[in-house]
Amino acid sequence: MLGKCLENVRRISPLVHNITNYVTVNDVANAILAVGASPIMADEPSDAYEITAICNALNINIGTLNSRTIEAMFRAGQRAEELGHALILDPVGAGASQLRTDTAVNLMKKIKFHVIRGNASEIKTLFTGSGNTHGVDVSMADAVNDENLAFMAGFVKDFSRSSGSVIALTGAIDLISDGGKCYAIRNGRPEMGRITGTGCMLSGIMAAFIAANPENILEAAASSVCLMGLAGEIGYSHLLEHEGNSSYRNRIIDAIYNMTSETLERGAKYEIL
Amino acid sequence: MLGKCLENVRRISPLVHNITNYVTVNDVANAILAVGASPIMADEPSDAYEITAICNALNINIGTLNSRTIEAMFRAGQRAEELGHALILDPVGAGASQLRTDTAVNLMKKIKFHVIRGNASEIKTLFTGSGNTHGVDVSMADAVNDENLAFMAGFVKDFSRSSGSVIALTGAIDLISDGGKCYAIRNGRPEMGRITGTGCMLSGIMAAFIAANPENILEAAASSVCLMGLAGEIGYSHLLEHEGNSSYRNRIIDAIYNMTSETLERGAKYEIL
Amino acid sequence: MLGKCLENVRRISPLVHNITNYVTVNDVANAILAVGASPIMADEPSDAYEITAICNALNINIGTLNSRTIEAMFRAGQRAEELGHALILDPVGAGASQLRTDTAVNLMKKIKFHVIRGNASEIKTLFTGSGNTHGVDVSMADAVNDENLAFMAGFVKDFSRSSGSVIALTGAIDLISDGGKCYAIRNGRPEMGRITGTGCMLSGIMAAFIAANPENILEAAASSVCLMGLAGEIGYSHLLEHEGNSSYRNRIIDAIYNMTSETLERGAKYEIL
Repeated sequence: MLGKCLENVRRISPLVHNITNYVTVNDVANAILAVGASPIMADEPSDAYEITAICNALNINIGTLNSRTIEAMFRAGQRAEELGHALILDPVGAGASQLRTDTAVNLMKKIKFHVIRGNASEIKTLFTGSGNTHGVDVSMADAVNDENLAFMAGFVKDFSRSSGSVIALTGAIDLISDGGKCYAIRNGRPEMGRITGTGCMLSGIMAAFIAANPENILEAAASSVCLMGLAGEIGYSHLLEHEGNSSYRNRIIDAIYNMTSETLERGAKYEIL
Repeated sequence: MLGKCLENVRRISPLVHNITNYVTVNDVANAILAVGASPIMADEPSDAYEITAICNALNINIGTLNSRTIEAMFRAGQRAEELGHALILDPVGAGASQLRTDTAVNLMKKIKFHVIRGNASEIKTLFTGSGNTHGVDVSMADAVNDENLAFMAGFVKDFSRSSGSVIALTGAIDLISDGGKCYAIRNGRPEMGRITGTGCMLSGIMAAFIAANPENILEAAASSVCLMGLAGEIGYSHLLEHEGNSSYRNRIIDAIYNMTSETLERGAKYEIL
Repeated sequence: MLGKCLENVRRISPLVHNITNYVTVNDVANAILAVGASPIMADEPSDAYEITAICNALNINIGTLNSRTIEAMFRAGQRAEELGHALILDPVGAGASQLRTDTAVNLMKKIKFHVIRGNASEIKTLFTGSGNTHGVDVSMADAVNDENLAFMAGFVKDFSRSSGSVIALTGAIDLISDGGKCYAIRNGRPEMGRITGTGCMLSGIMAAFIAANPENILEAAASSVCLMGLAGEIGYSHLLEHEGNSSYRNRIIDAIYNMTSETLERGAKYEIL
């Protein structure tokens, strides 16, 4: 099933519109290409609105939001919803400022996202409408671990039911739920946190997975999370002597590029709660 | 001749002003440095206007245009034309939205570009004032191939004559014409399409080539296209096991960095129609 | 002492807010992560103001300034000063346009920066309120060399005293002074000038060093300059056959990632004037 989701991405090659931050946008584009889909970026409101219509998916990431791009997010998001496109929200830094929290919360209110993907702090911020975030990383107290796994899975299920979106809370253990089942995924490596953009890349890839697998949104989201984590493991194993986080970034994207459905099926580490 | 164009870039080291998209801007800057020129980026209208004057070339790329940067494009473009600088237009996504089509068409009307470089869909959009684009890639029906080569070369020649610009329609086979001769270039590899920014990099490099070879604009444009394609071939040959599109991007820029005029002369694959 | 400064960065892991250009922002983020700190980017005025409060340092880089981000620079800068955060100014292209010169000069007037880091042309522009810059590179006549070392060190000391900021004039020889002592640092390689962003990365890293070493600002600034230059040397030694400037960029960031305080102490090449 997880491998089949990847095969569908490569067969259909969705065009993913990204309104995303300028920090990691290049990696997002190359990650989307690596997985077999195509990226396009447009964030001027009138342009973003129109570009939406020729795409199959919209990935909204608020990492470096401004008043112009916020307008583009709402206009493109509403258009994408009308057209039935795959819709992903990445609420980068929600909880770190009022503008980010309000924008993410309002986007959720106005637009029905298929998946909302963030770290524990961001997801909790959206749940409560307030919270705290140490930059874009989850604070220690917020991390999912073996002790709080059942509790956190319950939280993610609840939030999915109340929001009507699949919730993907990613970290050392990733939790993805549609309100019924909850995937707990253990792929990935801690060194991925020393690269900027692994979360952003995942959201872009996930948009392609949702677009290519509209009948299996939960599985498609889980498949993309396994793929990203597994690419992190494979990329790490390919690091040469003296290489660090910059080469690791390249080797992760390379691993996505070379990922087969068989490797994904074999390497995915998950349980369903 | 093609090698001589590269030598002139390295001897003169033009300063290239880029008003370009934020997706691939870093690669454009490093590609311009790799070829032996210098990049500068400015897109606030008053700043862009003034920065233009200290440069030798202006590369306008509409990939993530917005109302502010569009104003900068017109102001900088008109200033660059007054000053006799090399002027390149890369109409990314023309045909994909009205704003992109209109901006590109109006830039062509107001500013005399030395070269307009795009894929078949973008170039056809500019020719007809309308069209269709699957994202930023040329649709299959638009690709230049051995069957339609003569027809497409004729189209490029016609458009060059009517527009007064060298037209560089790039793809599996690249066509570059000044209305008289038409270069058909077969360097490059299909895997370059799996990297974001190879077209953007080429436009930035081409601006340096035009600035350094003002007496031989057609040859300079053709030389830069051969160089980019050949760098794609060389970079591909240097890929290590397990490497994919992210490493390929680096190895292409590296190949530009290490390109000699001899290698370029020897590796260029073209005919003149 | 220089090694101790790096250890403090890794122990404290400051959160560095960057209002920086979109050309090199990804490399700045990865370089900050490589050194052991965390980056965050925000440039919408209200967002930047609020994000400042959760950070330990602010790095202002005017490389692709616009009217919106300029407002963010002033608001975030004044907030960071009120909060006693580490404050760095990177006046990219000061002297190349009136907007850049005015913005940098006004930022200096309104905000007390711990360190102002630029090339000789930019620093001289700020000193005189006018000047000339060949793009973002120092013009030949402005370079620090063995002949003008004593004179330039005197200039840097003077400017530090009059401005109240540590001045870091970087180039083939780097000069860093607090008005009393002046470090002259000879780490680095000329090939670093063929990569975009080594200066921007240094400013981001330096912000982390200042935040983690508030009692030793001069030494912290000098330590970050030695680290960046040494990473340039080490990264160069790790280049494989056929690699060029794009791989060099990765290998420099990788070398920062793998830098130990012992390597830094042993490899730092400086004298105190």
